[in-house]
Amino acid sequence: MAPTSDDALPISIHNINPKVLKCEYAVRGEIVALAQTLQEELLTNPGSRPFEEILYCNIGNPQSLGQQPITFFREVLALCDYPSILERKEVEGLFSEDAIKRASQILKQIPGKATGAYSHSQGIKGLRDAIAEGINARDGFPANPNHIFLTDGASPAVHMMMQLLISSEKDGILCPIPQYPLYSASIALHGGTLVPYYLDEASGWGLETSELTKQLESAKFKGISVRALVVINPGNPTGQVLTKENQEQIVQFCKQEGLVLLADEVYQENIYVPDKKFHSFKKIARTMGYGEKDISLVSFQSVSKGYYGECGKRGGYMEITGFSADVREQIYKVASVNLCSNITGQILASLVMNPPKDGDLIYKSYCAERDGILSSLARRAKMLEAALNSLENVTCNKAEGAMYLFPCIKLPVKAIKAAEAANTVPDTFYCRQLLNATGIVVVPGSGFGQVPGTWHFRCTILPQEDKIPAVISRLTDFHKAFMNEYRD
Amino acid sequence: MAPTSDDALPISIHNINPKVLKCEYAVRGEIVALAQTLQEELLTNPGSRPFEEILYCNIGNPQSLGQQPITFFREVLALCDYPSILERKEVEGLFSEDAIKRASQILKQIPGKATGAYSHSQGIKGLRDAIAEGINARDGFPANPNHIFLTDGASPAVHMMMQLLISSEKDGILCPIPQYPLYSASIALHGGTLVPYYLDEASGWGLETSELTKQLESAKFKGISVRALVVINPGNPTGQVLTKENQEQIVQFCKQEGLVLLADEVYQENIYVPDKKFHSFKKIARTMGYGEKDISLVSFQSVSKGYYGECGKRGGYMEITGFSADVREQIYKVASVNLCSNITGQILASLVMNPPKDGDLIYKSYCAERDGILSSLARRAKMLEAALNSLENVTCNKAEGAMYLFPCIKLPVKAIKAAEAANTVPDTFYCRQLLNATGIVVVPGSGFGQVPGTWHFRCTILPQEDKIPAVISRLTDFHKAFMNEYRD
Repeated sequence: MAPTSDDALPISIHNINPKVLKCEYAVRGEIVALAQTLQEELLTNPGSRPFEEILYCNIGNPQSLGQQPITFFREVLALCDYPSILERKEVEGLFSEDAIKRASQILKQIPGKATGAYSHSQGIKGLRDAIAEGINARDGFPANPNHIFLTDGASPAVHMMMQLLISSEKDGILCPIPQYPLYSASIALHGGTLVPYYLDEASGWGLETSELTKQLESAKFKGISVRALVVINPGNPTGQVLTKENQEQIVQFCKQEGLVLLADEVYQENIYVPDKKFHSFKKIARTMGYGEKDISLVSFQSVSKGYYGECGKRGGYMEITGFSADVREQIYKVASVNLCSNITGQILASLVMNPPKDGDLIYKSYCAERDGILSSLARRAKMLEAALNSLENVTCNKAEGAMYLFPCIKLPVKAIKAAEAANTVPDTFYCRQLLNATGIVVVPGSGFGQVPGTWHFRCTILPQEDKIPAVISRLTDFHKAFMNEYRD
Repeated sequence: MAPTSDDALPISIHNINPKVLKCEYAVRGEIVALAQTLQEELLTNPGSRPFEEILYCNIGNPQSLGQQPITFFREVLALCDYPSILERKEVEGLFSEDAIKRASQILKQIPGKATGAYSHSQGIKGLRDAIAEGINARDGFPANPNHIFLTDGASPAVHMMMQLLISSEKDGILCPIPQYPLYSASIALHGGTLVPYYLDEASGWGLETSELTKQLESAKFKGISVRALVVINPGNPTGQVLTKENQEQIVQFCKQEGLVLLADEVYQENIYVPDKKFHSFKKIARTMGYGEKDISLVSFQSVSKGYYGECGKRGGYMEITGFSADVREQIYKVASVNLCSNITGQILASLVMNPPKDGDLIYKSYCAERDGILSSLARRAKMLEAALNSLENVTCNKAEGAMYLFPCIKLPVKAIKAAEAANTVPDTFYCRQLLNATGIVVVPGSGFGQVPGTWHFRCTILPQEDKIPAVISRLTDFHKAFMNEYRD
């Protein structure tokens, strides 16, 4: 039988689910695809480019850029993966006493110590208990382990909530602009409508309830029933940390309008300025007197962020409060179709929410690792922010938290026209040129959304500290050359 | 502010996505929920039931019932979780030489040895290379690593394909009945139509192409465009292994009708009869002369099954052949929204597709572990099958493969009426009574689909071998008592 052309295949781009086509995810989009091509080129043909390596500043992936994992966490994971060595004397030579103790405790919570068995679809009960304790310690308000769903990172948790809330394009989700494109992608895949609300760049990416009200009314007018409000705090890609007062206004708005508050709190440990503190939305709501029966609130947490940055482990959870038992049962059912999240990720989620404590033998070295990473991130954020603000036509808000800077570039008309001629969006044009000239990968602002006519890019603060000066000098040189070429 | 009633919450069972409501997943359904309640009861009130423990035969979860993991696999995982010990001398006292070697090889394939970093969204390239080699060794036909997508177990892979293929209820997927309810659940969640084709119980759950044609025509007549055919081989819940001839007919049918062949091949290592062998559908298609441009074929594989049974690690992959580059790009985009599957699962998937080989120091002990598990499973299948066939009104096909028996019970009219009176389905009625009397958890046939008017249940062959006699005697005693109570 002679091979036929691709047209003979049953599936083509023209007959797949249009929601899939509609979905976009710039964090791993065209600029990253170009970077991968360049990386292969550098391997086969070193010296072919004006740089020696590709520097991935497109994604919050700390360990890919050399950040070392927290020793205690990895010790415990290794012991849980291979529990039979716990019975061997030699184990004490390789693993810390605290790790051996913690691994043994965790294994006791897993029926038959079977880290290779499917768990309860919400996650191992003992680990959910530990996470609930951690939430309680953080907030001063109790958490119910039965309201916690362990997930393979925060992304599947967001998908589950979108799947629950969206029945058709008539269902809207209020999302910040700029936003982390997981939200737009997930809303597109589930066939809903993203209702944008703009963060105010001039006030450090502030969130105004007047803007929320305006956008909600406008959506209602279009016949869209808004189901939920997404807030990312600390902000992604924007890096701001909301004030307590602002959070209270948001809670009040959701309560008043009957919206589910979807709180992306994955950067809760990433705060770099002394005058800001993380407050969970649940703590804010409870402090305001709103309980389980007053407001529906989902908090997303991940092991990929924080000072641990364990992206590859795909661990995380969502805490679902203010949902009736029968709705929770539906969420459980959807979780059960995928059986459970990975046990390594589950264990790690319990560890990050219950790290070593004062008094543990390992506490001092654990703190040194943690604080070393966090203080270095703060320094890197500051250095990059200052460098960006020193560039012609560039302004950059402070990275109070998270892992990103989101500078605004006033692109000259000549550059915008050149982008048009190249059939691309101006910020993508800039990012593409930056990559080609320096090997630095950043994500165009258009991938996150921005006020029409403004242009940004998102750059992580994650290159190792000793590389920051080189990043800054490459970026600065490129920007100068770019401006010289396109200045009006 | 006074707390309000649940009715004040914005989300209720009446306004969530109706597709979520429609989705069913019996493997973790009402019988399992009852089992969990009984288990808690036994903990707080031992002796309150006529059994001491709950025996979960509802789900293919070997390690939850005491199966031990393969040592080599776990050694490698532990070393990859905590790579810094590879540099310590003491590591040789705790880990085998082969595991140290393999872990080092794997870490070399991960940029920066960073097992805590997000990987390429299809999975780490070096691990995909290893899997492609494993497929090649299995089939004698090459596999392209760029056609492999590593996933958190097979379930998310199935969801991704359904999401791609289903745009509306007008899109149909041909599924075997009985089927593994992941398929019906996933089709329901994505809003498509399950087009059933019945396996023939009388011929050992044979698959007739005449039945496929009939159901396809009937679906077309209803205006449904059938996009794909699901085949589960070895069968779940049915346990049959398809003959080569049967597989050829299926390939020919898909080719002729322009259907994507979705081949669930997760039980490829679980075959218990000497006269049957596993052939991948890709091997069959290639042997028939059909290449990349002739037929669209997806093969699902998982680390949860086989002799390794590493369910909790959530590893797996799909191999996508016969799809155009632009469609593969769309699949990649959807994968990228969730960033990547967990790295531990990725490593494990590469290990099960490339286990130790003859000549490795560990080969003999690895084989002993593997063969011990597989031969024990074959004995258990035989014992349970014989016991079931000895029961009044019960017939049970041979478990040629997979991990299940799916006996047919001719329920007496009196039992059916009692079930009606209890407002439940007859096979659920039977399973509920079995659980209440014995602590044995099985899944009613209605959760998988069955010829109307016939009743079945699915029972795993996974209780440890020394427990099988007790399982058989409890089951037999219960069945006798049930029949005595309800015999017409």
